[in-house]
This record gives sequence, structure tokens and C-alpha cells, in this order.
Amino acid sequence: LREIDHLTALMSRLPGLGPRSAKRAVLHLIKKRDGALRPLIDALAKVADAITPCHVCGNIDTTDPCGICREAASGSGRRDPTLVCVVEDVADLWALERAGTWRGVYHVLGGRLSALEGIRPEDLAIEGLVRRVQDGTIREVVLALNATLEGQTTAHVLADRLAPFGVALTQLAYGVPVGGELDYLDEGTLTQALKARRPL
Amino acid sequence: LREIDHLTALMSRLPGLGPRSAKRAVLHLIKKRDGALRPLIDALAKVADAITPCHVCGNIDTTDPCGICREAASGSGRRDPTLVCVVEDVADLWALERAGTWRGVYHVLGGRLSALEGIRPEDLAIEGLVRRVQDGTIREVVLALNATLEGQTTAHVLADRLAPFGVALTQLAYGVPVGGELDYLDEGTLTQALKARRPL
Repeated sequence: LREIDHLTALMSRLPGLGPRSAKRAVLHLIKKRDGALRPLIDALAKVADAITPCHVCGNIDTTDPCGICREAASGSGRRDPTLVCVVEDVADLWALERAGTWRGVYHVLGGRLSALEGIRPEDLAIEGLVRRVQDGTIREVVLALNATLEGQTTAHVLADRLAPFGVALTQLAYGVPVGGELDYLDEGTLTQALKARRPL
Repeated sequence: LREIDHLTALMSRLPGLGPRSAKRAVLHLIKKRDGALRPLIDALAKVADAITPCHVCGNIDTTDPCGICREAASGSGRRDPTLVCVVEDVADLWALERAGTWRGVYHVLGGRLSALEGIRPEDLAIEGLVRRVQDGTIREVVLALNATLEGQTTAHVLADRLAPFGVALTQLAYGVPVGGELDYLDEGTLTQALKARRPL
């Protein structure tokens, strides 16, 4: 069936689903058309319509600028716009927000440099970060990248790129286990790593 | 974000996706709104609109009765409507069709009896099968259920239920590995198991 094959192909491209599990998922949805398929379509459409990337930091939210950037710009004092935490992905931003320790703003790179996957500096939101730093209001940039080889390579490239501007550069303390990914860490470890951040 | 949480909750109910992989899948979709999210919505909507269960056999297709039942009813001789192969699920029907050996029709039960999951005879399409056999045109019912405890329990219940009607009852030969599931078998094994089917 063409419709089912096409849907299965799209589903199997999602991270975590292979061709066989995608087929099972599609059959499950067809079996429960009103209970699962229609609600899923509605939820996807709502996200497609309502969610937008923030042009300032790359976070995703229902507003642009996002809630975090707007809070920082409001002058309420609850977010310090002079402290920027650089993360690879929105999932990392969410992990840090769950930890509840960071009172600055963010910059989402949208990935990390990878020779293997052909991800180059121009594929990441690096120039946007440079422009934010050039504006002169930022005092400190915390590099909260994954403690992987690729994450650390990315951190070094960012450090080189930001060095001319005289902004304080720090990175997460090694509370982050070597080889670990931020998104999988507990909140206590993330909090410790943020508190003990050290100059780069 | 409410929209994202709701979508993630729905995605995590799909077989093969847990809460964390569902979140990754949702983020992937948001990142690729035009390349992945919109096409997925369209493909799901097409399936929801176009795909319907066959009221005769429980197969799913763009028509009701399904293509297999219509081929059998057409009198073309390519499908024998007097031979019915009973399967647990549409995925099993597809696996048998891929093997390309079966020239009869099907009956999809929609699952197997399971005390553990509380699936009782009235939850499966057993009465529909009984009605088809009562009509008198069916000569043989092949029980192509999984070679699991639950599949074989289901086979015995079906055998008891169909015994009064004097229809030939067979089951797949033990080419099917004990404990195995049909959907995971190669086509050669399925073909052998169909050819060597034996009286129940």
C-alpha cells in the first residue's frame, strides 16, 4: 500500500525508529485511528503551527524572541542577559532549565562540529553568537557542550573565534562524566558542573 | 511547552519509542519542520483518510472489501475463496503475502488471547470467522498463528469453536521456530511452513 509505505518510510527516519519498528508504529496507529492516529496528527499540526525558533538564541518556543530571551530583556532581574550559556541542542537547554540553576540566557548552536558527519562551522549558529558578543553587553560565555571529542573540538573552535572580543570564557566543570552527553545527566550533576565552571 | 509535551506524550505511546526517544524524535521534527514535520503530517492524514479495515477479513486497504477479498470474489481463479488463512495481525498477513505462496484469502483476528493482557475471545474477530465458515463456502482454515504459548492457546480455542462445522483445520508446519513470531521470519521459512501445513 503506497500510503502506508510512504508513512512507514517517513517514520523510520525518526531517531530511535528503524524500518521494522516504524511499521509496527504505523500499524498501531491504523488500528487506533480515532484514539491515536487523529490525536497525533492534531498534536503534530499544533506544534508545526505554534512552535518557532527564537531568532536571538535558537531556542524553540511559541513566541519569537523566546520566553527566556524576553525575560532577560524585560529588566526584571530574573535573567541576566550578560551571561550566555552555549549549548549544542535545545534538549541540552531543557536539561539545564530542569536543573534550575542557570540565571543567564542561552545560545543554541544546533549541533556540534563533526568531520565524520560533515558538520562544519558554517552549519552551526556560530556567527550569531559572535554578533551577540560583538554587541558588547555580554560579560561571560559558558560553553556547556557535551564532554565528547566533538563537543570539545567545538568548544576550542568557539574559544578561538571569541578570543578577540575579550569576553570571559568558561566551560562546565568536570562534574560532567567524560564521554557523557548533557541530556542524559541528572540535575544534581548539572548543577555542580555549572557552579564549578572554570576559565577556558 | 504544552504543545511539545503533549506531542511527546503521544509519540512515547508508539511501540518502540520510550519517553526519551520520543522527545528526540519531536525535537528532530521541530528542527526539520518543512523537511520532516509537514510531510509526516501529510502522510499520516493520507493514511487516516484513505486506509480502512476490510469488513470481510480485517485486512487494511484503500478499499472495503480489500484487494485480496475482491480478487477472490472476482472468480479470476487467482485467489481461492474456499481457503482461509487465519493470522493474528495485519503484519502477519503482509509477511505471508511477501512470501508469495498463499493463494487463498485471510482472516485477521486482531491479536491473540492473553490472560496477562486481558485479551478475551470476544476481543478478537472470532465470531466473524465463525460466520464465514457457517456460510459453507470455506473448505479449509489454516491457522497461521505465532508459535508462542498465546498463539497456540488461541489456535486451540479456534479449533474447538470451528470443530462443529466440519471444515478442514490445519496449522502451519513446524518450520516456524518455537517461540518465534511470524513477522520476523524469512520468506523461505514461511513458504516451507505453509507447504508442509498439517491437520490439527
